[in-house]
Amino acid sequence: MLHSFRALAANYSVIFFDAYGVLKNFEGVIDGVLPALAELKRDGKELFVVTNDSSRSPKKMSQLYVHEELGEIFPEDRVISSGMLARDFLRAKVKAKTVAYLGKPDSAYYITSAGLTAIPLSECTAKTEIGALALLDDEGFDWQPDINRAINLLRHKTIPVVVANADKVYPVHRNDVAIAVGGIADLMESALDRRFVRFGKPDAYMFSYSFARASALTPGVRRKDILMVGDTLETDIRGGNTFGIDTVLTLSGNTASEDYEFWIAASGVIPDFVCESIAT
Amino acid sequence: MLHSFRALAANYSVIFFDAYGVLKNFEGVIDGVLPALAELKRDGKELFVVTNDSSRSPKKMSQLYVHEELGEIFPEDRVISSGMLARDFLRAKVKAKTVAYLGKPDSAYYITSAGLTAIPLSECTAKTEIGALALLDDEGFDWQPDINRAINLLRHKTIPVVVANADKVYPVHRNDVAIAVGGIADLMESALDRRFVRFGKPDAYMFSYSFARASALTPGVRRKDILMVGDTLETDIRGGNTFGIDTVLTLSGNTASEDYEFWIAASGVIPDFVCESIAT
Amino acid sequence: MLHSFRALAANYSVIFFDAYGVLKNFEGVIDGVLPALAELKRDGKELFVVTNDSSRSPKKMSQLYVHEELGEIFPEDRVISSGMLARDFLRAKVKAKTVAYLGKPDSAYYITSAGLTAIPLSECTAKTEIGALALLDDEGFDWQPDINRAINLLRHKTIPVVVANADKVYPVHRNDVAIAVGGIADLMESALDRRFVRFGKPDAYMFSYSFARASALTPGVRRKDILMVGDTLETDIRGGNTFGIDTVLTLSGNTASEDYEFWIAASGVIPDFVCESIAT
Amino acid sequence: MLHSFRALAANYSVIFFDAYGVLKNFEGVIDGVLPALAELKRDGKELFVVTNDSSRSPKKMSQLYVHEELGEIFPEDRVISSGMLARDFLRAKVKAKTVAYLGKPDSAYYITSAGLTAIPLSECTAKTEIGALALLDDEGFDWQPDINRAINLLRHKTIPVVVANADKVYPVHRNDVAIAVGGIADLMESALDRRFVRFGKPDAYMFSYSFARASALTPGVRRKDILMVGDTLETDIRGGNTFGIDTVLTLSGNTASEDYEFWIAASGVIPDFVCESIAT
Repeated sequence: MLHSFRALAANYSVIFFDAYGVLKNFEGVIDGVLPALAELKRDGKELFVVTNDSSRSPKKMSQLYVHEELGEIFPEDRVISSGMLARDFLRAKVKAKTVAYLGKPDSAYYITSAGLTAIPLSECTAKTEIGALALLDDEGFDWQPDINRAINLLRHKTIPVVVANADKVYPVHRNDVAIAVGGIADLMESALDRRFVRFGKPDAYMFSYSFARASALTPGVRRKDILMVGDTLETDIRGGNTFGIDTVLTLSGNTASEDYEFWIAASGVIPDFVCESIAT
Repeated sequence: MLHSFRALAANYSVIFFDAYGVLKNFEGVIDGVLPALAELKRDGKELFVVTNDSSRSPKKMSQLYVHEELGEIFPEDRVISSGMLARDFLRAKVKAKTVAYLGKPDSAYYITSAGLTAIPLSECTAKTEIGALALLDDEGFDWQPDINRAINLLRHKTIPVVVANADKVYPVHRNDVAIAVGGIADLMESALDRRFVRFGKPDAYMFSYSFARASALTPGVRRKDILMVGDTLETDIRGGNTFGIDTVLTLSGNTASEDYEFWIAASGVIPDFVCESIAT
Repeated sequence: MLHSFRALAANYSVIFFDAYGVLKNFEGVIDGVLPALAELKRDGKELFVVTNDSSRSPKKMSQLYVHEELGEIFPEDRVISSGMLARDFLRAKVKAKTVAYLGKPDSAYYITSAGLTAIPLSECTAKTEIGALALLDDEGFDWQPDINRAINLLRHKTIPVVVANADKVYPVHRNDVAIAVGGIADLMESALDRRFVRFGKPDAYMFSYSFARASALTPGVRRKDILMVGDTLETDIRGGNTFGIDTVLTLSGNTASEDYEFWIAASGVIPDFVCESIAT
Repeated sequence: MLHSFRALAANYSVIFFDAYGVLKNFEGVIDGVLPALAELKRDGKELFVVTNDSSRSPKKMSQLYVHEELGEIFPEDRVISSGMLARDFLRAKVKAKTVAYLGKPDSAYYITSAGLTAIPLSECTAKTEIGALALLDDEGFDWQPDINRAINLLRHKTIPVVVANADKVYPVHRNDVAIAVGGIADLMESALDRRFVRFGKPDAYMFSYSFARASALTPGVRRKDILMVGDTLETDIRGGNTFGIDTVLTLSGNTASEDYEFWIAASGVIPDFVCESIAT
């Protein structure tokens, strides 16, 4: 039985939203989403985006959801991306100042905001003192030479590698997907027979990080006050469950109305609730 | 170059210790460990055990490290096991009151302390309303019938499965190991083609959980005040690094003096420091 | 569109049958199978069983399919099990005379018929000179002590390990499955971080071995004269396709009438034909 | 203890050679190899190349080893590449006439020699009737667009995919490697959650195929007459062992003199003999 999202949301004071498949899709912000978010905000709900997208800064993601009256629905400090965990890791653990990266220039934000120098891997020379390699985005570099360059760099030099987005694939059009940077990381790990440091849902750490942020902004919040909203069982729902918060699956993205019960049984990942979309 | 643990510890106010290979081994508490811990305690350090061992309650683990003058080095609330994360998950997510388990009776503590009823899987009948299955320990059940029983239960019933210890193997004697419950979980996941909910190092969540506990006991603690001490690169050091705290590898357990540099380069998991043992 | 097996079989002179799910199931020989086989035999077809079951000798498997007039449908030399490939491997590659095994006494046939001495792993002592370890069957030993014993044996001694059946699970009742010896091999490989020598479908070698046997018995046979009949896409059909012979999926076992088209599309394993069963 | 290759070879009438690391390396044919091969040939040995390299036709590979007096050491019909197994698969199993491929134009030989039409994947349009996709080589296409194109093609269309080389990486310079087409296949399989049809060592089928070729050219040959020579434990030696022929590891390529004993123990893949190189 499907729930009304609106009625469900009334029971929580804090709501975590996955972005792609819940708030937006390949065509942009999903119809009906902005009015629904505005209503929640007027009801006093604390709203956060919790996303594995590390291709842009939180500020840029914030600008995607602008309501004509209320302005930005998610101010910059309410957008939590796995890139921020990668940034904190780099800040704490990198000894040399320069971090090589694979990704678009925009994604380098997660390096520079840690006070480090970002340099595309293709521009590194034998003399560059590299403190870490960051896999940020699947675009912005030439796969064949740069993936091979990365592998050989790591065979010769013992440095940490951080993956800012654990996803293997992501949707690009109604019927098409593309390999995400998590898939490229798999390829490199397999070639090297080692595992990198990865951040993102479904790791419970992504949720404890978001919880800490929510606690800082709204002191006294408890886990049972929070609802995680997502369209993907294996990331959003699995992660929210593992962290012990309530979860709702929306059927507006990766998981379709006609077979969501099959996928819940097959995966053993059980959302507390299921809604058609957040606009219903 | 090896560091002196004593000198190193002076720079931190909170210390997280892995148990097996750091504090104890197959013969019991390692020689010199109790005096070293006592000294740290006299210096005012806040000491915690952070372990994937979920075969016993924190209270029982606490009783392993008793100093003749200072008493229990790690009072019960300073022993953090992955079983506690499993317990919190069960408390938050299980709808029916009964949880079936694989493990020794002692390990059922992590179910009953969540206010739930624990029942060995072998005692469940077709009529038992099972809310979840918990994999707690590799002992206390008959592998062949019970693993097959578990698989068929999960093929017929959509319930969460929680694994309280992510380890695949653990040492049992100087030269021997045994399959841990994480390895049994792998076998079951592969047979079912689904993934369970797992807790334990190297997940950063294990460290954010420990950090929250340390913060509650010693308010104001920051990540850079904490040192993680472990003998295993892939769990202790990887996890501490991912969470962004300083890490020290000891050569008193899984990783040997003669090849630790090889394993650091091969794994890409780089401890901030290396010490012979905590007694040096 | 489903084909009539009878009509289809007319185009081939040699037919390879998977056993479980095609010829028999948990209740015994499937209704209608013996008459169908008898008819094929009267038509002059050369019939073979090609199976991953290594729990018994070919002679014992031969005795399962006895027609009241024709006698044994599959004489012993027309039953090809993956155990025979394991036997040939042991014969060619084992230096010491004694092979330790996990499995029922019956399965040790594949060791003794290689001219070697078979000894259950649990009966080996520190002094036994073991030339190889053979994983033959999931029954006949006590999983916990014997799997741990096997792992430690292999950590201390460099000997080959052969797995006589690559399957992970097998059906035991209408709705239940059990872990097969291939699943136990996975568990051990993961604990040891090495891979054993495995035999069985879907490896094309199982088919080239069967082809060699068919060629010896019916000289001049070509690949296009052979039809592989199986109920499992990932073993029977994948393997037959890889070897380049025609394949037919029957819906009498693992793959059900209502969703076989879904599984073909999902797996990309495409049988040349589909039949309800061989009795139709 | 290392053996003399020359003395060892005297015991066999047929010798299978891996190419890269045994006969040649990044600089070309290894010093001393041509004289050693000539001597074997003068002694009447039957010599074959057994390789996972499918980037060129056997004819082109044949031209790499030309002795000034004896001419081509390995005539075209004595070069066996995994691409030939892929070709036989395509010939037997593809229904539509056009096969899309990833690889250099040279590698398309394995499609056209099956009597099929080869077309680079990037030149396919929505109207092209594609009967199969062949992954032949890691070069000759633009990774990012073409890998994503391949994935979406396979999500929409149920066709077989064949991988002509199972290797994940291959050496390109003294200290560098590159991702091979088997690694690209892994990436695509993981994104699609399905497995392709792969050919190459260590599959025993590669050896039964080579054995059939050797039997056709030198009737009456038995397995014990054959020696497999390779530099890689996990492909050459594992595969030769699985097929039941004698194997010799050379230390002229992937496996180094100083640690071959470690790798044999760690992998459990045990060559019958070890030689410095075939020129010794």
